[in-house]
Amino acid sequence: MKVAIIGAGSIGLLFASYLNKVIDDVTIYTRTKEQACEIDTNGILLQNESKQILSLVRALPVTEWKGTEDFTIITVKQYQLLSVLDQVKQFPRIPDNLLFLQNGMGHLKLLNEIKAKNIFVGTVEHGALKVNPYTVSHNGIGATKVALFRGDPSLLQHFAAQGSTDFPIEMHEDYFDILVNKLLVNAVINPLTTILQVKNGDLLENKFYYRALNNLFKEICYVLNIEQQAEHLQQIINICKKTAENRSSMLKDSEAGRLTEIDAILGFILEEADQKGKQAPQIENLYLLIKGKEMKKEEIE
Amino acid sequence: MKVAIIGAGSIGLLFASYLNKVIDDVTIYTRTKEQACEIDTNGILLQNESKQILSLVRALPVTEWKGTEDFTIITVKQYQLLSVLDQVKQFPRIPDNLLFLQNGMGHLKLLNEIKAKNIFVGTVEHGALKVNPYTVSHNGIGATKVALFRGDPSLLQHFAAQGSTDFPIEMHEDYFDILVNKLLVNAVINPLTTILQVKNGDLLENKFYYRALNNLFKEICYVLNIEQQAEHLQQIINICKKTAENRSSMLKDSEAGRLTEIDAILGFILEEADQKGKQAPQIENLYLLIKGKEMKKEEIE
Repeated sequence: MKVAIIGAGSIGLLFASYLNKVIDDVTIYTRTKEQACEIDTNGILLQNESKQILSLVRALPVTEWKGTEDFTIITVKQYQLLSVLDQVKQFPRIPDNLLFLQNGMGHLKLLNEIKAKNIFVGTVEHGALKVNPYTVSHNGIGATKVALFRGDPSLLQHFAAQGSTDFPIEMHEDYFDILVNKLLVNAVINPLTTILQVKNGDLLENKFYYRALNNLFKEICYVLNIEQQAEHLQQIINICKKTAENRSSMLKDSEAGRLTEIDAILGFILEEADQKGKQAPQIENLYLLIKGKEMKKEEIE
Repeated sequence: MKVAIIGAGSIGLLFASYLNKVIDDVTIYTRTKEQACEIDTNGILLQNESKQILSLVRALPVTEWKGTEDFTIITVKQYQLLSVLDQVKQFPRIPDNLLFLQNGMGHLKLLNEIKAKNIFVGTVEHGALKVNPYTVSHNGIGATKVALFRGDPSLLQHFAAQGSTDFPIEMHEDYFDILVNKLLVNAVINPLTTILQVKNGDLLENKFYYRALNNLFKEICYVLNIEQQAEHLQQIINICKKTAENRSSMLKDSEAGRLTEIDAILGFILEEADQKGKQAPQIENLYLLIKGKEMKKEEIE
């Protein structure tokens, strides 16, 4: 099976490194020529607490991507997805098996517009940090959860079978469930840690932050019509505990002056609220404060 | 007329310095013996852009306050007010004329509990910064607005007549109006600038912050049943413009690891919401985030 990985951020590099061990033909497509060249020269270096692993993976700039691989994993951020999909639409033959690993749920409506036969979606719970253009630090093992969005799941099942202890891949029945699940976690932990500039664990240890977390969670559940709230809340608490010393991805993006995924996460929930005619004052407030912070960063640059 | 000033923060020092020029007998009462001693030794030094003025003002620790002056100005923060009022209640004779200059409106219910004949309240719009125990920097001239809360206004009128161009004192009819007015300004500008760590002017310049400001303003107006909202909003905008380069008092308190006035400001509005059975999700969220920040500071100390 020929596999393409689109995007060489932390998740792209992580997937390329692990999949290259078990799949013969992996190509990673990068946004810049420079990064493709760096990976071609150095390979991909995966670091974790105990070891470093070097993988020789073919790397090409994404402009070279022709969509001819059997299975394609799209790891770019949601706000980069439109340009990837535009490229897909130009291919003479739309690729058959596309797996989308974006945060949030705003991208689902975009997937309806493309004609690929089999479309899959998934979530990634690994802790991973891109150290340089060809090095990724694997800080925490987490599941990759995948599910069928449309079409035939055969190739997704084959892909899921390539998982391992360090890189587990779980096949799920309901794509909506896994995306909502991840969205709830991201929508609560990311904005609060970003606006407060605190580590994930602080949201539990500080009694006022914990009350804010609960209030925000309830408003999100109200907008998204979430059932089994106690279970979801417990999951968020568990993740805060497990990652107590970590800074969330949104906080790291914000501190580094990068765009955050606020539109894919709270922006999506605000759209849902709008469509359903529901009020979401806390969500809107946090959304605006984080969008404003992004704008200030842009001004500085 | 003998005047007592309780509290020697920036406002207490500012009042002592200006009033000492026009009133024969002014005493400033300080929380610590050390500060009284510093003021006795050095006088009070008032700095502004063009000059420095030294005033020789009698200073005593507040434990020496017996309530025998004709007119008493209480300048402590709201969260220090309870201990001042406890002291007042112990006096053999309750002082006749008390002027309270706290932010927020939460202190009004405490004033009903004391037996002073004439009670006045007011707001202060000066920009002032305590540089050291006996030096205050007067950064911006603003009005002191005073009004009768209960009793006979004669001595307040006499006091208001002591104002000057640099230190204007305005007598108002309706105490509720001047306090609500100040509360609206404080409740919008202070929490947002504190949580975002930005200058007042950024709330106008950044379009997302400006939308957040508008949303918060509307929720506060809803809780407090504010009429003439356009006028109040315009006032907030004017203050942001006029003080664009300033950091709000709450932001300065937060950055210095001091307690903020969040309870007197948003805490009061939340109590109002609770009593009226109204929802105030944005206000509660900001209140919790700032209370949480205070707690973190306490942990560090």
